[in-house]
Amino acid sequence: MTKIRAMITGVGGYVPEYILTNQELEKMIDTNDEWITTRTGVKERRILKGENMGTSHLAVPAVLELLKKTNTKPEEIDLLICSTTTPDFVFPATANIISHEVGATNAFSFDMQAACSGFLFALNTGAQYIETGRYKKVIIVGADKMSSIVDYTDRTTCVLFGDGAGAVMLEPNSEGFGLYDAVLKTNGAGHHHLHQKAGGSRRPPTHETIDERLHYVYQEGQAVFKHAVVGMADAAAEVMERNNLKGDDIAFLVPHQANKRIIDATANRMGINEEKIMLNIHRYGNTTNGTLPLCLWDFEKNLKKGDNLIFAAFGGGFTWGAIYLKWGI
Amino acid sequence: MTKIRAMITGVGGYVPEYILTNQELEKMIDTNDEWITTRTGVKERRILKGENMGTSHLAVPAVLELLKKTNTKPEEIDLLICSTTTPDFVFPATANIISHEVGATNAFSFDMQAACSGFLFALNTGAQYIETGRYKKVIIVGADKMSSIVDYTDRTTCVLFGDGAGAVMLEPNSEGFGLYDAVLKTNGAGHHHLHQKAGGSRRPPTHETIDERLHYVYQEGQAVFKHAVVGMADAAAEVMERNNLKGDDIAFLVPHQANKRIIDATANRMGINEEKIMLNIHRYGNTTNGTLPLCLWDFEKNLKKGDNLIFAAFGGGFTWGAIYLKWGI
Repeated sequence: MTKIRAMITGVGGYVPEYILTNQELEKMIDTNDEWITTRTGVKERRILKGENMGTSHLAVPAVLELLKKTNTKPEEIDLLICSTTTPDFVFPATANIISHEVGATNAFSFDMQAACSGFLFALNTGAQYIETGRYKKVIIVGADKMSSIVDYTDRTTCVLFGDGAGAVMLEPNSEGFGLYDAVLKTNGAGHHHLHQKAGGSRRPPTHETIDERLHYVYQEGQAVFKHAVVGMADAAAEVMERNNLKGDDIAFLVPHQANKRIIDATANRMGINEEKIMLNIHRYGNTTNGTLPLCLWDFEKNLKKGDNLIFAAFGGGFTWGAIYLKWGI
Repeated sequence: MTKIRAMITGVGGYVPEYILTNQELEKMIDTNDEWITTRTGVKERRILKGENMGTSHLAVPAVLELLKKTNTKPEEIDLLICSTTTPDFVFPATANIISHEVGATNAFSFDMQAACSGFLFALNTGAQYIETGRYKKVIIVGADKMSSIVDYTDRTTCVLFGDGAGAVMLEPNSEGFGLYDAVLKTNGAGHHHLHQKAGGSRRPPTHETIDERLHYVYQEGQAVFKHAVVGMADAAAEVMERNNLKGDDIAFLVPHQANKRIIDATANRMGINEEKIMLNIHRYGNTTNGTLPLCLWDFEKNLKKGDNLIFAAFGGGFTWGAIYLKWGI
């Protein structure tokens, strides 16, 4: 068998310096560390400060680190996909800016939008380009400056999110490492539970939309939680089942970091214990498209060649899914 | 040879009823029909009217027509990609809403952003999913409500754009029809010549950005024109050359409809005459992600099985490219 699979050959990451702690949030809004920690698992999150700073300013250092770690010249990159919910501009694509800034002059690039499942969807999309033999070096960067769309007067959402970026390199492998399977789902019926009410073509920005604070993350927490618990666990279970994987076969769950309780429910359904969960929500919060690659970035040292990983995510749309990948570095 | 290619098995389209003519624009701004026609080729464009109407309201009828024409049940769809620059919401993806509205309950879906080259990039991306054998029925819908980001007091840009949507179905074919090759390029160095200054993570909406009218298409016409003429023609020439195609081998150029002079320059470079150009810019203007599929929609009756088509586009980013596809219906 010489089936070509898309293997992750390197990981880069970046989180901005500024740390926003629960203690600091206690001074800004009516909340407390104990409440936040119990409900969400978040202790602190990073915030990108400065004028005219956007998501590309998180993504570029992550990609530069990736290039360095993999000894890749930027001109070798064939394709760069940026999954983001907070692009630098409404248009053009943030991926174009990132490619330019890192010197990936031969890459073509585009943005993908699938909210918190964006990195999962982009990873699978990049893998198709490798599997067809079309391209040899594909970068997937998941990045979000969530602080640009978080309302810091809304105690139910502002505690959840942080800024960050992570990137992986995909290259062809014919020795059995790489992406094996993906279970990806969408249900637009749930879009109104988690969205940004204004700023798109339905309701472009006006003084009124500013005054009504409609340019922020709007989330009906209970509804999203309920769907997320089921969706993420179901997708993980489905991808394991159709690849004949039991809990013991899995080295790590790489879960979207939206809420520790959702992650625990998924791990429980998969039959794996806590040591097998990549968890950094306490340090970064929910960085949306950044969560999965930032997990790999933090836990890379714990991985060994041949490890079976299950990626799982759930997010706005609704979008959700799981990917089975065999680690090959 | 049983190589699987992604073949276009159907086309759907939709333009809204309201027609904004050059004569009407003459009453709104300091311009005239002769000036607009000579410089751009646009005579009229369609505008989506109504409260809370977004890009999905253009895309849904296009996809519904596509499903009907191809006798496809919506549940059969595996993947729906929406390429758009004017999503309904900042998040979630407009593709999720479209999938839900048309009943594509088994599809996963996401948005792609590559400005005016978005449909080209999405067509190639959808094709990868077909070529790997992963999916059997993929819908690519290009849709934009450009009127939501056009400044109707800016005489240099408001004459150019219109609203519209087009969709194609991709299915596997092993008889030599479908997508053969793609030359896709990006250069983020040019992003500032054509972008929307505010509304993204670099500069979220404020009263100030509204007052400064920064939520509209900003274009330095001369710079974009100069790059577009070269980029679109170069990409078309490159994809023809590496597939040993001469002008006589081409049945039709399917060009992005930004400006008739850019299209003519591309056709000239390809060595084809005017009858081989799909042109509808006079009727719809530049519908951004809608232009290429709306060309197919209008000219489908002129196509026959085995026709060689060259798709070419240039847009914000900069992004540009060309695709060689053999028509198979």
